[in-house]
Amino acid sequence: MSEPLSVNSIVATRPTAKEIARRVDASIQAQENAIGAWHWYDPKRLTAEAERLDALPHRGPLHGVPVAIKDVIDTADMPTEYGSALYEGNRPPSDASCVALLRNAGALLVGKTVSTEFAFKAPGKTRHPFDPTRTPGGSSSGSAAAVAAGMVPFAFGTQTSGSTIRPAAFCGIVGYKPSFGLIDRTGIKVLADSLDTIGLFARNVADIATVAALLAGRPTLAAAAPTREPRFAVFRTPSWNLADEDAQKNFEQSLLKLESRGARLQTLEDPADYLALLSAHETIMNWEVPRALAFERLTGSHALHPTTREGISPLPGLTADDYDAACALAADAMQRWASLLENFDALLTLPARGEAPIGLASTGDPIFNRAWTQLRLPCVTVPSGTGRSGLPLGLQLVGAPRTDGRLLAASRMAEAALS
Amino acid sequence: MSEPLSVNSIVATRPTAKEIARRVDASIQAQENAIGAWHWYDPKRLTAEAERLDALPHRGPLHGVPVAIKDVIDTADMPTEYGSALYEGNRPPSDASCVALLRNAGALLVGKTVSTEFAFKAPGKTRHPFDPTRTPGGSSSGSAAAVAAGMVPFAFGTQTSGSTIRPAAFCGIVGYKPSFGLIDRTGIKVLADSLDTIGLFARNVADIATVAALLAGRPTLAAAAPTREPRFAVFRTPSWNLADEDAQKNFEQSLLKLESRGARLQTLEDPADYLALLSAHETIMNWEVPRALAFERLTGSHALHPTTREGISPLPGLTADDYDAACALAADAMQRWASLLENFDALLTLPARGEAPIGLASTGDPIFNRAWTQLRLPCVTVPSGTGRSGLPLGLQLVGAPRTDGRLLAASRMAEAALS
Repeated sequence: MSEPLSVNSIVATRPTAKEIARRVDASIQAQENAIGAWHWYDPKRLTAEAERLDALPHRGPLHGVPVAIKDVIDTADMPTEYGSALYEGNRPPSDASCVALLRNAGALLVGKTVSTEFAFKAPGKTRHPFDPTRTPGGSSSGSAAAVAAGMVPFAFGTQTSGSTIRPAAFCGIVGYKPSFGLIDRTGIKVLADSLDTIGLFARNVADIATVAALLAGRPTLAAAAPTREPRFAVFRTPSWNLADEDAQKNFEQSLLKLESRGARLQTLEDPADYLALLSAHETIMNWEVPRALAFERLTGSHALHPTTREGISPLPGLTADDYDAACALAADAMQRWASLLENFDALLTLPARGEAPIGLASTGDPIFNRAWTQLRLPCVTVPSGTGRSGLPLGLQLVGAPRTDGRLLAASRMAEAALS
Repeated sequence: MSEPLSVNSIVATRPTAKEIARRVDASIQAQENAIGAWHWYDPKRLTAEAERLDALPHRGPLHGVPVAIKDVIDTADMPTEYGSALYEGNRPPSDASCVALLRNAGALLVGKTVSTEFAFKAPGKTRHPFDPTRTPGGSSSGSAAAVAAGMVPFAFGTQTSGSTIRPAAFCGIVGYKPSFGLIDRTGIKVLADSLDTIGLFARNVADIATVAALLAGRPTLAAAAPTREPRFAVFRTPSWNLADEDAQKNFEQSLLKLESRGARLQTLEDPADYLALLSAHETIMNWEVPRALAFERLTGSHALHPTTREGISPLPGLTADDYDAACALAADAMQRWASLLENFDALLTLPARGEAPIGLASTGDPIFNRAWTQLRLPCVTVPSGTGRSGLPLGLQLVGAPRTDGRLLAASRMAEAALS
């Protein structure tokens, strides 16, 4: 089988979209039965779309780059069912902002990937691409699996707790949750308004950077070379004991590899507010989710997965005062962490508790993601070898607020050191 | 003609929804030709909806309260065209959060009110309810006009610059833009993600407070009595000279009336960052709007009003650095203004330059609104007599961050003093 497609190789060699569509379709046909990455995919539409792109008078900068789109992100020419039976047959009137921008750049929109219902907890059908008995992670399950399987070189996800970083780590690919507000999220199904962020999946950091630069209107994001002698803060977190032993060991080995390539490491003492932040994130979701999904909860409850129905119900006893206190704590913490991180290229931490867990009933635990999402910080996970079952592990890098370019450059360094 | 309906009188007297629907329809039939407040209204559906509500086994706390909904807010059982020909016939699959919550409380959803296209600059058909040669203000034009004309006691709008406070002032009613994040905005057409806020219109502050308490899950909002001897900061702003002379004079008279009722006033020296804040707000909108409306700009441009087409185009030369600087300035300003305002019940300022201007080509200038929206502060406008043409003027009250209950209580005091 040929090398999987990459964004930058397509940009550099400029094949026809038709040729790319043929390869994408072959890869999907060969693997989809086993993986179930797609919520909606139509090979005829893909071919037609490729032909349309090839016939355009001018080719966009991402001409023919195949893109998978998580089903909670609106598309005007494909169904968008938010992973929910309640939205069966839904066809939005417009593309989400991120979709419109890639479409305009000439990207080849391939189809919709499986999401948990509303990007919340109830899993979809997707299996881990390297072990069908395991979850690929979630909520962006299909996007992570499709990129890991080489079906597409790039996919969109979202992250409200750990829905991009965790599945990317489980699947052995690169995941990127930008700084909150860096990439416009208009047109996604809202889960928690103060947290939802577009997520990006690719097979390498350079591919992520190319697309992120275009989406964010920040050309410098694409330009950064791997950082030489980066300064990293090492933070094992108070949840360290929840990580699997092989993941802990792999983390320590990763640190040694990075040091041997010139990285300067400094261990962070447990900041006092970390556990409070996890609790604040939980409170904020418990308050916002039942409000964002008020229609679904009050009018469409019958059609929802029981896990969703329970998860989006207002938490008895939770008050606006609790929510306000959580927001105030998070706002204070953002300031402290901004100072804490400003002298580092990134903080290093685990992206997940370990390898993808066995079973499809849960997409795994976002315990190593929630604080960073709450702090609105940019996060990247890069592949970092394998665990006890031969499945991928990752290393998470977290940047200071809005230092996405610096973080991507440091991530390129880490990616090279750990590959 | 009978006294116009109010939210709290309906809550107190609990008439049937059918009886209310009859009154609402009579008022609309009598006035709509002259005003044009409605983008979509169907009397048959209104009657059927009222009968459905009356037949329910349990009546909600807002049983039968008639509500108008700005056309940029999604409704599952009515068209939602975002004020744009591009969305002709659009029917969303779900209600916006605020709509779902009121529907669940038993409110009688009357129809969709006219919005400028995408709540931006291109005006709709609505005329000022008291002078058809004038704009009612915008972008929430139809909502303000419908409440002012007594067609409905309550309406939803949105505010990204001044789209709630300004039309409410022009139309002589109460407008309320809550603290950013206080009322879930899921299901509105996004114009600028970091600014968009749900707006509320009613004929008195107590009605606003009743609905806001339910929407925000904060019962205390409804409970507040008018503040005795409130402390007000008076801020004429560096834009004072842009206000009409009658509006300036009315403002000074309002201060005297408030003082005579026990309010303690303290004039605020012009804070150094005010003009920079206006500029930051402009930069942030110039950056975010073309991204939020990427689909419309890149795919649907042909169907847009020329004003919209121009307004949503990326501003040549504007860079991510400009945007970041504007965001940083705004974040700093939020901290300073929080300290500045914490010892006051509210800041008093103009809600608009004066009476509703003549002509329908523009909905007026948001110069007296933009800074407060950018600061994410809660704002209320209350009626404050009339100007040189006998048309309404208002007084705007701006609260410290997330002190919406305190602001509504102070607004009740001001409302009583100025009525």
